Amino acid sequence: MSAVVFDHPWLSGLFGDAQMADLLSGARQMAHMLTFEAGWSRACGKAGLFDPELAEKAAQAIESAEIDFDDIKAGMSIDGVPIPRLVKQLKAIAPPETVHKGATSQDVVDTALVMTLRDAAELIAGRLMELDAHLNALEAKFGDAPLMGRTRMQAATEITVRDRLLSWRLPIKDHLVTLDHKRADVEKLQIGGASGDRKALGDKADQVIAEMARALNLAPNDKAWHAMRHGIGGYASFLSLVTGSLGKIGQDIALMSQQGIETISISGGGGSSAMPHKQNPVAAELLVTLAKFNATQVSAMHHTVVHEQERSGTAWSLEWMVLPQMLMATARALKTANELVQNITRIGDKQA
Amino acid sequence: MSAVVFDHPWLSGLFGDAQMADLLSGARQMAHMLTFEAGWSRACGKAGLFDPELAEKAAQAIESAEIDFDDIKAGMSIDGVPIPRLVKQLKAIAPPETVHKGATSQDVVDTALVMTLRDAAELIAGRLMELDAHLNALEAKFGDAPLMGRTRMQAATEITVRDRLLSWRLPIKDHLVTLDHKRADVEKLQIGGASGDRKALGDKADQVIAEMARALNLAPNDKAWHAMRHGIGGYASFLSLVTGSLGKIGQDIALMSQQGIETISISGGGGSSAMPHKQNPVAAELLVTLAKFNATQVSAMHHTVVHEQERSGTAWSLEWMVLPQMLMATARALKTANELVQNITRIGDKQA
Amino acid sequence: MSAVVFDHPWLSGLFGDAQMADLLSGARQMAHMLTFEAGWSRACGKAGLFDPELAEKAAQAIESAEIDFDDIKAGMSIDGVPIPRLVKQLKAIAPPETVHKGATSQDVVDTALVMTLRDAAELIAGRLMELDAHLNALEAKFGDAPLMGRTRMQAATEITVRDRLLSWRLPIKDHLVTLDHKRADVEKLQIGGASGDRKALGDKADQVIAEMARALNLAPNDKAWHAMRHGIGGYASFLSLVTGSLGKIGQDIALMSQQGIETISISGGGGSSAMPHKQNPVAAELLVTLAKFNATQVSAMHHTVVHEQERSGTAWSLEWMVLPQMLMATARALKTANELVQNITRIGDKQA
Amino acid sequence: MSAVVFDHPWLSGLFGDAQMADLLSGARQMAHMLTFEAGWSRACGKAGLFDPELAEKAAQAIESAEIDFDDIKAGMSIDGVPIPRLVKQLKAIAPPETVHKGATSQDVVDTALVMTLRDAAELIAGRLMELDAHLNALEAKFGDAPLMGRTRMQAATEITVRDRLLSWRLPIKDHLVTLDHKRADVEKLQIGGASGDRKALGDKADQVIAEMARALNLAPNDKAWHAMRHGIGGYASFLSLVTGSLGKIGQDIALMSQQGIETISISGGGGSSAMPHKQNPVAAELLVTLAKFNATQVSAMHHTVVHEQERSGTAWSLEWMVLPQMLMATARALKTANELVQNITRIGDKQA
Repeated sequence: MSAVVFDHPWLSGLFGDAQMADLLSGARQMAHMLTFEAGWSRACGKAGLFDPELAEKAAQAIESAEIDFDDIKAGMSIDGVPIPRLVKQLKAIAPPETVHKGATSQDVVDTALVMTLRDAAELIAGRLMELDAHLNALEAKFGDAPLMGRTRMQAATEITVRDRLLSWRLPIKDHLVTLDHKRADVEKLQIGGASGDRKALGDKADQVIAEMARALNLAPNDKAWHAMRHGIGGYASFLSLVTGSLGKIGQDIALMSQQGIETISISGGGGSSAMPHKQNPVAAELLVTLAKFNATQVSAMHHTVVHEQERSGTAWSLEWMVLPQMLMATARALKTANELVQNITRIGDKQA
Repeated sequence: MSAVVFDHPWLSGLFGDAQMADLLSGARQMAHMLTFEAGWSRACGKAGLFDPELAEKAAQAIESAEIDFDDIKAGMSIDGVPIPRLVKQLKAIAPPETVHKGATSQDVVDTALVMTLRDAAELIAGRLMELDAHLNALEAKFGDAPLMGRTRMQAATEITVRDRLLSWRLPIKDHLVTLDHKRADVEKLQIGGASGDRKALGDKADQVIAEMARALNLAPNDKAWHAMRHGIGGYASFLSLVTGSLGKIGQDIALMSQQGIETISISGGGGSSAMPHKQNPVAAELLVTLAKFNATQVSAMHHTVVHEQERSGTAWSLEWMVLPQMLMATARALKTANELVQNITRIGDKQA
Repeated sequence: MSAVVFDHPWLSGLFGDAQMADLLSGARQMAHMLTFEAGWSRACGKAGLFDPELAEKAAQAIESAEIDFDDIKAGMSIDGVPIPRLVKQLKAIAPPETVHKGATSQDVVDTALVMTLRDAAELIAGRLMELDAHLNALEAKFGDAPLMGRTRMQAATEITVRDRLLSWRLPIKDHLVTLDHKRADVEKLQIGGASGDRKALGDKADQVIAEMARALNLAPNDKAWHAMRHGIGGYASFLSLVTGSLGKIGQDIALMSQQGIETISISGGGGSSAMPHKQNPVAAELLVTLAKFNATQVSAMHHTVVHEQERSGTAWSLEWMVLPQMLMATARALKTANELVQNITRIGDKQA
Repeated sequence: MSAVVFDHPWLSGLFGDAQMADLLSGARQMAHMLTFEAGWSRACGKAGLFDPELAEKAAQAIESAEIDFDDIKAGMSIDGVPIPRLVKQLKAIAPPETVHKGATSQDVVDTALVMTLRDAAELIAGRLMELDAHLNALEAKFGDAPLMGRTRMQAATEITVRDRLLSWRLPIKDHLVTLDHKRADVEKLQIGGASGDRKALGDKADQVIAEMARALNLAPNDKAWHAMRHGIGGYASFLSLVTGSLGKIGQDIALMSQQGIETISISGGGGSSAMPHKQNPVAAELLVTLAKFNATQVSAMHHTVVHEQERSGTAWSLEWMVLPQMLMATARALKTANELVQNITRIGDKQA
C-alpha cells in the first residue's frame, strides 16, 4: 500500500485503475524484461554470437525464472538500474556466457517500457472508442435539445446539446488518430549496447536486430534511441492532451450541475458527511483534477528530452517517476468519463 | 522596449529573433485580422448574406484600413478581446451592415493565430532543414573521429563522433515529419459565430466556410474548434520537443567544452568581465535554457485544453500569454543551434 | 505494490524512504482522523453540544475502532472523500448523536493532513540538521584544499573546497529557519463545518476550537482555512526549494566525478550491466532527478491555490495527488544527500 | 513593441502594468548597474584598492554615463551577459584601473536585480495594503448579507458575505507578512568576484562589503550567493502565491456572475463583438489567467535552484526569462483586483 493516490488504501477508490495498474505492475514489467533477455539469448544464438544450444537453454531458463525482487531492489540504490542484479540472478540459472552479453541496462529497461506502452495503448484506444460510442449515443438521445450557449461564463445564445457534445466527442476521435502516430513513434526496439553503438554485435548487429524485432514484434531501427527521447516526450504529451479533453467535459458538467443552472442530471453522485442532501459532481471534478495533474507532469517529461551524452541517469530516472503516473491518470480519467457519460439522464435546458 | 527578454533593450541580443518577432508583431497580427474581416465581408456578400456590392466596398476599405492600436488597447482591458473596438473602427470606414456580422471575436483572433502559425511553421521548417544539413556536413567532416562515449556522466566505451551526431540529427528529421502533422492539426479555419454553432449563417454556412477557406487558404471544417484546444496544445508540445532536442545538443556541447574533457572546439564564444581568458559556451548554454523555458511553458498550454463551455476567457487568454513566447524561444534556439553547429571547428577526442 | 517509484517492488530501492512512507501510510492517516473524531466528540461533550457521558463513550470507541479500509475505498469513488463512510462506520460502534456532528469532511481530512505535516517536519528537520553536520565535518577535513572554481562550465579561478562547500551548506541552514515559518503557517486546526462558518457550533465555537487545539496540540484560529490554501502552497514550495538545494549538490558532484575532472572521490557508486569497471554517480544523479521532480510538482500545488468558493473538489483532490509525493521525494533526497556526503573520501583538486 | 502580452501594442491593455514595467525597464536596470559600478569604484577607493581620487572621478563619470544599449545588446549574444561591454564603455569615460576591477558580471547583474526587487516589493506591498482596505470596506458594506455557501460547486448551507470575503482578505494579510520575510531573504548585496570567493579584494573584502552595503542600502553578507538561488526561488514562489490568492477571488467572482447564480453585480465589464448585451467578467477571468500563468512559471524558478558549480549560465539565464514576467503578472493582478473589488456594487444573494 502506498501514500500515492493510485495505490492508496482508500484514495485509490477515487484515483486508481485496476487494469492499468496491472499493466504497470512489477510482475508484468519483469515479464517484459525476461522476454527481452530470453529473446536476446536466442537472437545472439541464431546469429552465432552465442553457442546456439546453450543460448536456447538460457532462453528457456530465463523464461521460467523466478526473480527475487528484493535482491533487485537492494541493487537499485547502488546501481540506479535493476539490470546488473537481474543479470546476476539469470546467470545463476543459465549458461552465463549466453546471458545479456552485448546488451546494456537501457536496452532492457527501455524495450520493456515500450512493451508496456503497447499494452497501455490497447487499453487507452479501447476506452477512447467506448467513450466515442457513449457520446454518440448521448447525442442521438438528447442532441436536439436546446441549451443556452455560454461564453466567458455568461449566457450567450441558444445552441443545441449537439453543439456542445461535438466539442466533447470530436477531440476523442482526433486522439484515436494521434495515438496511432504516437505508437509508431515509440513502439521501437531499443538495442544499443554499452554506449549505444551496437559495436559489441559487430557485423551481426542487423541480424540480431531483425531477430529481436520479429520475436518481440517491435519495429526495428538503425540506431538505438537511448539518448533521443522526443518520442517518449511526445507520447506523454498525447496522454496529457487526452486528459485535457476529458477535463473539458468534466468542467462543463460541473458547471452544468450547479443549482441555478441545472442543465444536466446525473445519476449517482457523491455524498457529504455534513449535508446528506447534496449530490456532489465528484466524477466530473475528478476529470478536471486528472487533467491538471497530467498538465503538470507533462512538463517533467519535456525536461527529460535534454538527455545528455549517451545516457543521462538524471533524465532517464525522471521518466520513471512521471510516465507511469501519467498512464494511470489517463486510464482513470477515461474510465471515469465513460461511467459519467453513461450516468447522464438528462442534458439540455429544462423546458417549460 | 520590454522587460521580457525577447524584446529587452539588450537581453534580446541573446534571446531575441528578429524574423520570428516580425511574424508575431502586432502589425502582422492585425494584417491577418483584417484579411479575415475583408474575406468575411466578401464571402458573406457572395453568399447573399450581405449586399455584394457594399460588401466588396467594405472589403476594400478593410484591406487598406489604418487601425488605431491605442484605441484597441484601451478596449482590451474592458472587453478582454480586441475585436469589439476593431469592428467599431471598421464600421466607421465601411458600410457597417457588411462588417463582421455573423462572426465573433474568437473567429477573428483564432483564424489570425492560425495564419501566424502558418508563417511560423515555414520559418521553423526552414531552420530545421538547415540544421539537418549542417549536422550532416559535420558528420561528413568529423564522423569517423573517435569519441569516448559517456553514460551517466562517466566514460563508457569509445564510440565515433558519428554516433553522437546521429543522436543530434535524427530527432531533427523526426521533427520535420511531425511538423507536417501538427500543421494539419491547426491550420484550420475558425468560424463559429456567437456560440460557435454558425447559426447566424443559416443555410449559407457551408458556402461561407468554403469561400473563406479558399480566400485564406486554410482547411475548412464542419465545426468551429473554439472550445477544442488539443490541436493548439499539441502544437505547443511540438515546439517544446524541438527545443528539447536542441537542448540536448547544447548540453552535450557544454559538457564537451569543459577543461579536462575538451572534445570539441568552437570558434567565437563568450567573454567574462573578470576573466578575459575564458571562452564561455554561451550558445550551448542558451540551448539548454530555452529547452527548460519551453518545457515549463508547455504545461500552461496543456492546462488551457480544459476550455469550459463555448468559450473560456481564462484558458484562451493564457494561450496568448504563452504560445508566442514558445514560438520565440523555438526560433531563437534553432537560429542559435545553426550558428553553433557551424562554429564547431573540431569534434572528437584529441588524438595523439 | 505500486507502479509509482516510491512503492515499486524494486524502483523503491532507489526512490523510496521507509520512514516518510510510514508517516504517510494509510494506517497513520487514519489514526490522525480518528484522533480528530475522538477529540471532536469530547470537545463537543465538554461544550455541552453533546451529552458528555455519551461523548466520552464515543471518543473511547473511536480511539479503539478498527476501520474497514475497503469500505472507505468503495465510498471514495462515490463521495470523493473518505469521511461519509468513516462516520457511518463510527456511528455503528458509538452513540451516533455524539459522532462528527457539526464537523465536515474537510475538517477531518485537513486536520489529519496537518498532523502528518507535523510528523514530516520533524523528520525533515532532523535530516537537514544531520546534513549540516556532515557538511561541516567535510569542510573541517577538506576545506582548505584547492579547487578550480568553475563558472559557466569553464575553469575560472582557483578557490578552496570550503568556498564550494559553503554554497552547499548555507542553504541548508536557511531551510531550517524557513521550516519553522512554514510550520507556523500550516500547523493550524481546521474546523469550519459544512460551509466553513462554524455555524453549527453556535456560541460554543470558541470553546470547541480551544478544546480541540489543546487536545490535538495545534494552533487555534479565528476562521477555517478550507478555501485559503496559500499556506499549503508555500509549504510545498519549501519542499521543492530543499530538493533544489540538494540537486545543486548532486549536480556539482556528478560534474566533479567526470573522468578528466575528478575533483571528488566517493566510495560506493553504481555498477553497469555492460561495463563492470564503471562507477556511476547514482546518488548524485538521484538528487538532481528528485529536484526536477519537485520543481515540476510545485506547479500543481500553486494551481491548487485557486480554490473556488467554500470548497473546491478539483483543487483539493489535486493536493492529495501531489503533496505526499513531494514529501516522499524530499525525504529521499535528504537521506541520499546524507549518505552521499558521508561517502566522500576526497574532494578538491588532485595535488602534485 | 513586443509579441509578449505585457508590452504588446494592444494586448498590454489587458495584461500590462505601467508602473511595474517602469521598474523593470532597461533604463532603470541600467541605472542600478551604474549605481553598483559607481559604488564599487568609490568603495574600492576608500579601501585603498583603487586610487581614491581617480576612483571618485570614475564614480562620477559612471553616474552620468550615457550607455549605448545597442552595443551592449550586440555583446549579449557573444558574452551571455551585459557586463563586459558595459565595462568597456565605462572604461572609455573613466580611469580604467578604477572601474569594475575585482568584481564580476554576476555581482553587478544580481545586485541590480535585488535593487529592482526592492522597488517591486514597495509597489506590491502598497497594492496588497490597498486591496486589504478595499476588501475591508466591502465587508463593512455587505458583510452581513446572506450568501449561499457553495462546496464542490454545489449549494451547501447559507453563510454570510463576510464568510466569503474573509477567505479573500485573510490571505492578503498573510502575504504582507510573508513579503517582509522574502525581502529579507533576497535584498542582500551580491559581491563575490570571479569565482565568488572575494579573493581579489584580499583583506579589504569586509571593508568593501560594508561600504557597498551602506552606499546601496542593502544587507551585507559573509558569502556571495552566486550559486545559492533558493532565496530567489522562494521570492518567485511568493509572487505566485499572491496571484493564486487573487485567482481565487477572480474564480469566485466569475462563478458568482453567472446567469442563474447572480450573487454579485459589477460595474464595467466586457463587451462582445457578437452579443452587445453581454457583460463578460473580464477582470475576474484575468485574475484566474494570471494565477495559472504564475503557477506555471514558478516551476522554472524552482528548476533554477539547481545552479551548478560557481555560476550556471543556463540556470541564471532562465531566471532572467521568467522572474520579470512573474513580477509583471503579479503587479497586473493586484491592480486588476483592486479595480474589480471597487467595482462591486452588490454582493450576496438577491433577497426577496
